[in-house]
Amino acid sequence: MEIALLGFGVVGSGAAEVLEENRELIRRRLGEEINVQYILDLREFPNHPLGNRVVHDIAPILSDPEVRIVAEMMGGSHPAYEFTKAALEAGKSVVTSNKEVVAAFGDELLQIAAEHGVSYLFEASVGGGIPILRPLRDDLASNEILSVSGILNGTTNFILTKMKRENTAFADALKEAQALGYAEANPTADVEGIDAARKIVILAAISFGKLLSPEKIPVQGISGITPEQTALCAELGFSVKLIGHTEKQGEKILALVAPHAVPETSPICHVEGVNNGILVNANIVGKTFFYGPGAGKLPTASAVVGDILSIFDGGIRLPKWEKAGATDYADPQARVCRRIFCLAGCSKCAEKSKPFFGYETYLAKDGKFVFVSRPMTEKEMANALKECGKELLWTLPVLD
Amino acid sequence: MEIALLGFGVVGSGAAEVLEENRELIRRRLGEEINVQYILDLREFPNHPLGNRVVHDIAPILSDPEVRIVAEMMGGSHPAYEFTKAALEAGKSVVTSNKEVVAAFGDELLQIAAEHGVSYLFEASVGGGIPILRPLRDDLASNEILSVSGILNGTTNFILTKMKRENTAFADALKEAQALGYAEANPTADVEGIDAARKIVILAAISFGKLLSPEKIPVQGISGITPEQTALCAELGFSVKLIGHTEKQGEKILALVAPHAVPETSPICHVEGVNNGILVNANIVGKTFFYGPGAGKLPTASAVVGDILSIFDGGIRLPKWEKAGATDYADPQARVCRRIFCLAGCSKCAEKSKPFFGYETYLAKDGKFVFVSRPMTEKEMANALKECGKELLWTLPVLD
Repeated sequence: MEIALLGFGVVGSGAAEVLEENRELIRRRLGEEINVQYILDLREFPNHPLGNRVVHDIAPILSDPEVRIVAEMMGGSHPAYEFTKAALEAGKSVVTSNKEVVAAFGDELLQIAAEHGVSYLFEASVGGGIPILRPLRDDLASNEILSVSGILNGTTNFILTKMKRENTAFADALKEAQALGYAEANPTADVEGIDAARKIVILAAISFGKLLSPEKIPVQGISGITPEQTALCAELGFSVKLIGHTEKQGEKILALVAPHAVPETSPICHVEGVNNGILVNANIVGKTFFYGPGAGKLPTASAVVGDILSIFDGGIRLPKWEKAGATDYADPQARVCRRIFCLAGCSKCAEKSKPFFGYETYLAKDGKFVFVSRPMTEKEMANALKECGKELLWTLPVLD
Repeated sequence: MEIALLGFGVVGSGAAEVLEENRELIRRRLGEEINVQYILDLREFPNHPLGNRVVHDIAPILSDPEVRIVAEMMGGSHPAYEFTKAALEAGKSVVTSNKEVVAAFGDELLQIAAEHGVSYLFEASVGGGIPILRPLRDDLASNEILSVSGILNGTTNFILTKMKRENTAFADALKEAQALGYAEANPTADVEGIDAARKIVILAAISFGKLLSPEKIPVQGISGITPEQTALCAELGFSVKLIGHTEKQGEKILALVAPHAVPETSPICHVEGVNNGILVNANIVGKTFFYGPGAGKLPTASAVVGDILSIFDGGIRLPKWEKAGATDYADPQARVCRRIFCLAGCSKCAEKSKPFFGYETYLAKDGKFVFVSRPMTEKEMANALKECGKELLWTLPVLD
């Protein structure tokens, strides 16, 4: 059973390591060995045992009929998309960790795979090593999925955990994440929620069959979160987490990324450090939760190789996704949720403001008061703020 | 696509409800409808819409070639085992929620299924509605499983949660669980760990390919747990949980059920009420965690119907299990783990006992002292107790 690896960076070399480390186990499972016949990379790896498999051109891979599976771990949209398309059209199955390509072109690539009778799998693109996409699609197949919410980015969760535990400022926590290799030199994609947006779009497509565009959903990152917000939320029994959330609203789909206050009663609240945690709410089973390492060389490679084994094991039925049209997007402003508010004012103001937001208890200190509101839309929030007349210092939606 | 339900109690009627409730979704997925052609039960259900499908004899089901899948939800070993065997031999796939049958006869039934080219699936037998068996076997297929630990019984977790939160005695918490319908009139199977033992044996078989006997592993329940133990563990940062645990020790398999102290840093610590939570440690991905409703009509039915859909979707490759031989069982006394100890004595005794157990901090109150030891075997524990000379009031292993 021959495969090709596209990209021999962190994930690609991790996949090679998994195939070597668990060679015997894989042979027992499949009854045959998996051989890495080609590695496509611009670089040479003269000292690697697989160094003699390195090629710099996709052509020999596409034309070799022995290669049944191509594992794309290049990152970035191009040429990863073009190579994936060419491999599928050449009758090869493709597995990938590349959420950028799946989020942008997943509908088209699944369609091409179906036309050529091959597979396109991407378990590694969301939640790293956590089994989530197949459980969501296959194990919960008897359920209508109502919503999916979770911590989808380990870098931001590391930063927020540090801010909560050690009262660190965002900029300092980011620096430490960079020093430890958890954040890149240019951290924008992680910190501003772009990475999480790609992942929630994939989860929405698995759940609802329509592929939204990550650019067309509201995305807010964590650079505006302060240690004070984190501390006040903790006093109320909440952790601040960067949440990707999607839910069905009638025929429309709501999807967004934003910092949320998560109550201690939710398993998401206890996801710390670089881990990911994804909560699924489905109409029969209720709430199930999936947790583990959301990134990193070996966890991601675990999922890539898992997909390779599934294909060799046979029997995969691919989902069909449609590109979402303008009318498929729900209005994010219509979302109803509780919110934590921090308003300027004294205890007296806090007492007076109760009816507008529907709370009983609050914290008052340093000329501001903090409370958890009743569930409300953004419009109801604006009205309540107007009616109570106090200055809004900050607000965070609650993930219930 | 025709199926038969064996048993129309809580789970059986739940499965019928799921098939009705999500009929349209299932039709979209499979391109066809699933019809319940027979319901085997001793009772009649004249007022149920499916009342006219009720039969009291397995024979017409076995001889109807249109019935491709039999869902066994009768509970108990007999005649569930005989009916399952007969259905498989008649060329029908079987899905079940019956952990008793799987734990006792899973190896033989999988073998019979393989010989007849049909499936035998039992996702609902462990963790209720939580996807765990297929993720463990298929999604983590690139990994060697090192250990599986978890809360596998919702009834005992409800009782322990109540004891921790409200300082309730075991007997009172049990009564409330019975009043709420979470515990049966005869609660022995839940409370004494017998139910959890069946489930850990199934998880061990999925992980390691050998079916241990639930009667041959050490099983301890929670009837001996006191509110004082719960409170002292909480002061040290631990929750007391009934844990099913299995791990590979060389070529041998360790499996056991016992109350453990679980540290706050573990996701298992935060599983409350009737939920289940299962932590998998695998050699590539590291630790992943699966959480959700571990029992109940609809969650269990969700998994049963999920298995039915997988079979109609096609492409299942069944595991092969061997019956474990005497040499497959690891010696539980050789297990190395940290432990919480409560010994009789004052602060001075606690200071003196440090070198024997390797701890720095301890709680001392009411003539007893409590601490977390270094990792040790049962023999090392016995030696340390002898050397320090203090009376052991109680001890709990720590789940690390």
